[in-house]
Amino acid sequence: MAGTQFICTGCQAIMPGNMDTLRCPVCGDPVDILRADTGGFSEPQIAVGQQWMEAVTLGEGRTPTIKLSRVAESIGISSLYAKLEYLNPTGSFKDRGSAVVVAAAKAAGFSEVVEDSSGNAGASVSAYAARAGMKAHIFVPSTAPEAKIRQIQAYGAQVHPIEGTREKVTEAAINFQQSRQLAYASHVLSPYFIEGTKSFAYEIFDDDQNPFPDHIVIPVGNGSLLLGTWKGFTEFRDVEQMKCGPKIHAVQSEEVMPVVSAFLGKQEKNHYETVAGGIAVGSPARKEQIVQALRATNGQAVGVSDDDIITWRNSLCEQEGIFAEPTSSAVLAGVQKLVLQGTIKRNEVVLIPITGFGLKDPL
Amino acid sequence: MAGTQFICTGCQAIMPGNMDTLRCPVCGDPVDILRADTGGFSEPQIAVGQQWMEAVTLGEGRTPTIKLSRVAESIGISSLYAKLEYLNPTGSFKDRGSAVVVAAAKAAGFSEVVEDSSGNAGASVSAYAARAGMKAHIFVPSTAPEAKIRQIQAYGAQVHPIEGTREKVTEAAINFQQSRQLAYASHVLSPYFIEGTKSFAYEIFDDDQNPFPDHIVIPVGNGSLLLGTWKGFTEFRDVEQMKCGPKIHAVQSEEVMPVVSAFLGKQEKNHYETVAGGIAVGSPARKEQIVQALRATNGQAVGVSDDDIITWRNSLCEQEGIFAEPTSSAVLAGVQKLVLQGTIKRNEVVLIPITGFGLKDPL
Repeated sequence: MAGTQFICTGCQAIMPGNMDTLRCPVCGDPVDILRADTGGFSEPQIAVGQQWMEAVTLGEGRTPTIKLSRVAESIGISSLYAKLEYLNPTGSFKDRGSAVVVAAAKAAGFSEVVEDSSGNAGASVSAYAARAGMKAHIFVPSTAPEAKIRQIQAYGAQVHPIEGTREKVTEAAINFQQSRQLAYASHVLSPYFIEGTKSFAYEIFDDDQNPFPDHIVIPVGNGSLLLGTWKGFTEFRDVEQMKCGPKIHAVQSEEVMPVVSAFLGKQEKNHYETVAGGIAVGSPARKEQIVQALRATNGQAVGVSDDDIITWRNSLCEQEGIFAEPTSSAVLAGVQKLVLQGTIKRNEVVLIPITGFGLKDPL
Repeated sequence: MAGTQFICTGCQAIMPGNMDTLRCPVCGDPVDILRADTGGFSEPQIAVGQQWMEAVTLGEGRTPTIKLSRVAESIGISSLYAKLEYLNPTGSFKDRGSAVVVAAAKAAGFSEVVEDSSGNAGASVSAYAARAGMKAHIFVPSTAPEAKIRQIQAYGAQVHPIEGTREKVTEAAINFQQSRQLAYASHVLSPYFIEGTKSFAYEIFDDDQNPFPDHIVIPVGNGSLLLGTWKGFTEFRDVEQMKCGPKIHAVQSEEVMPVVSAFLGKQEKNHYETVAGGIAVGSPARKEQIVQALRATNGQAVGVSDDDIITWRNSLCEQEGIFAEPTSSAVLAGVQKLVLQGTIKRNEVVLIPITGFGLKDPL
């Protein structure tokens, strides 16, 4: 059986897939895994492209979906559903991606992985590395909050604090990985990571308890959940001749909204701090691809204020009993905006992911 | 259809079931729900005894089970499985019980519930009360850690800090509840709570992915998970003519082990502090019933040291990628002890719950 192949998200060049290729050697754009005939998870093996690899699992995925009646009423829509991605093993949706990227690194013979993230991705890659019996090196800004570092260290990962900008942290991680010839388990660039987040779409498609959504509204930092969701639905649309999938919309904080700016063709404003740390990404490497996904599904991109993010975070917790990190509540502010601008009709079915547990970021 | 009936766990008296009856009016022992022909969950309604009530759900239950190969090897057994109860909506197994006790309070027409717990139960009842549109009053020791109080408050619950012993906190909660005629959603005494934790056993019984366990080893404070598990299996043994169910074992910290002492017929030693806050219960109200459950399944009760609890907590996180609260890792020390004393044979199948998320209690 042929190994996994990659396809460039820019120039569409096709190349052999491996852990070392994170950008197209022709044009430099990020790469995806070329779609195979097999998709989805099957334990104890998973199919990635045309390659089968031993699963590294902590029980990720198959998260519950519940109806949010009170919050929906506040927004003025009839059918709002939340898929509780924070009930993944390390407390965020990132586990879907980490499970696959760590399995790929292990299958390729690596025993150490490198990642740069002080947040959900850092904790997630650390946990899956531990589960796979691998050592994890996590590069973080030296200013990262103690509580997040503690979760990463609990999994036995080595934390490398780096001074300077977020870009410096990525640079240090890549230098370290390349000089030591380790695997870079990037939640941003690795196509294996995005391959893992596709299962979010598969589960929505397979859900026979809840109505199929007209709209899926997703918080976007580096876009790994949005891109996986899009890729997942694209497969089903091909395979099952679906006429149209759900519209996929992106929500960012007004303080840091490069995707919204690119989507609207506006000048980016300067980047400030936001309470929604999970989506505070100034220059997402897959920005063009995210915009492409939004256009392909007739989706929109909206920015929301930090005040609204905090207000919705409190409502979600006090009215529905869901304790989410601020990034997750940003989508509720986004849904409200999309309803007000007429993109979402009041009787349509809306689904949002609750991406991360509030325990990780209690404000 | 007749309403729910209660049965005394001591004198076996049968009485009408309601939110106000927490102990037998004849002998004062705790009460259970008299078994009905219907069992288990079915949304949007749940059966409790002979009564159907509208479900209050946050997506609890149906938690994943994963194999722990490295930890099993350290202990010297071949088949160790963990059911990840920390992936319930508020981060602990308590959600199974809270879902039912809050539904029962709502069905009985209450709009406010009272609970005494600074830990997992307090957060859990608060979340389900929020979900049900009810107000929660949570009584906590004035010395309770700030982080735990914050999760309770996030759900909009009113926290009542009480000075003095843990018993004083319970007393204050009951006084408040009785003087205002509110519902006491006790995870210790309410038979509805125990009814909810039965689903842990149902799911093990229904699991067709993993081998059926010979042993289930459970950390015990007030015993709500152990008792629910026992009750759940008892139903299946009756209904499906199972010859024998799994042996159910209790694990406590050596520092606070009233159940172990009662089981072994030994004098209780004085109560000290333990790192395992979730099982630091000096006088569990259902102690006799817990001992009865252990004897009925041929189970054992063992105490483990705080040092071992911390060592296993680190191993579980670093070797398997599971970040658990100390209470959860106590069972691993317990499994090791049960193997060494010959109660668990090296080739038998052992299942443990990972009861609470490490994020709640990062040490």
